[in-house]
Amino acid sequence: MARPSLREHLIDAASERFHEYGFNGSGIKDITDAAGAPKGSFYNHFDSKESMAVEVMSRYGETRELGMLADKSVAPMERIRRHFVFLSEDLEQYGYTRGCMFGNFGAELSTQSPTIRDEVGRRLGSWESLLASVLEEARAAGELASGVDAVVLARFLVSAWEGAAMQAKVVRGSAPLDDFFAVFDSMTA
Amino acid sequence: MARPSLREHLIDAASERFHEYGFNGSGIKDITDAAGAPKGSFYNHFDSKESMAVEVMSRYGETRELGMLADKSVAPMERIRRHFVFLSEDLEQYGYTRGCMFGNFGAELSTQSPTIRDEVGRRLGSWESLLASVLEEARAAGELASGVDAVVLARFLVSAWEGAAMQAKVVRGSAPLDDFFAVFDSMTA
Repeated sequence: MARPSLREHLIDAASERFHEYGFNGSGIKDITDAAGAPKGSFYNHFDSKESMAVEVMSRYGETRELGMLADKSVAPMERIRRHFVFLSEDLEQYGYTRGCMFGNFGAELSTQSPTIRDEVGRRLGSWESLLASVLEEARAAGELASGVDAVVLARFLVSAWEGAAMQAKVVRGSAPLDDFFAVFDSMTA
Repeated sequence: MARPSLREHLIDAASERFHEYGFNGSGIKDITDAAGAPKGSFYNHFDSKESMAVEVMSRYGETRELGMLADKSVAPMERIRRHFVFLSEDLEQYGYTRGCMFGNFGAELSTQSPTIRDEVGRRLGSWESLLASVLEEARAAGELASGVDAVVLARFLVSAWEGAAMQAKVVRGSAPLDDFFAVFDSMTA
């Protein structure tokens, strides 16, 4: 089996570092040090810290298990709930210190980097579209208490989740996520 | 009338800079340059960039008009709505580029600075307590459609608002805030 390349090591190190300390809080040297690589090696593999961040987001996106939302063997509202539970377990694993990388980057970098802003928008937008489809299914199945348009409700739920993930970082605990689930459950008919 | 002191100029400059580029995206020299002051003057007035950020948050908090939430001449749900409209107009004024400073700092700095994390938590917590009181009033007046506990609902609404302010930065438009108002309005009985 091939050894992971230095490029992979750098992406792994940057994923950890960006998620915990943000983009501007992570110097290139922090990343190369964490990967056990000389600082000069960075530019052999990446054009810029920004283009590396786009790859880090792609890697992070693959771990969000959005496929769970397409699994029609689970009833729609329960399917959405399980997906958010999966995301909350991921936050818990790190003691609620990390939040959602998309939300973190959106908050930190939207003014600074059009490239990262577009990538965050594209990724949150895809998630919202999937959620909207499942909310439509839920409505058709008579599972949805709210009369709000499914697309609007999907975008609202993503905002609520992103804000709750941020507040969980601030209070270092699950309370804001528990609040999210309490309100989400009240939307099930 | 006394001239604003250099200290005031530095806080004004830092408020603008932090809100637009974040904490780690704003160097001390960026702040002193914007205030038209020599870099060395910073440490005559502040112990650290972190302690300056706490003052900036205090200044920002004063502009959030939390007093609107205590104005009993306005019916409870309408009072909450007007407060969020006020906040949305503030975001619009800057083309949705800035978001909420508390949410930005919470997302960017919760791992890096316990001082800032505590201050964000204290300020979001005060806001949530005020909102919870108004939601209790709304419930007593029969204005609240949701059966969720007022404290839980207040914290949830702040998460939803913070996430919407972040998404408004990402899409550079009001859509995420419009979604917030659509769902908020559906909570009014």
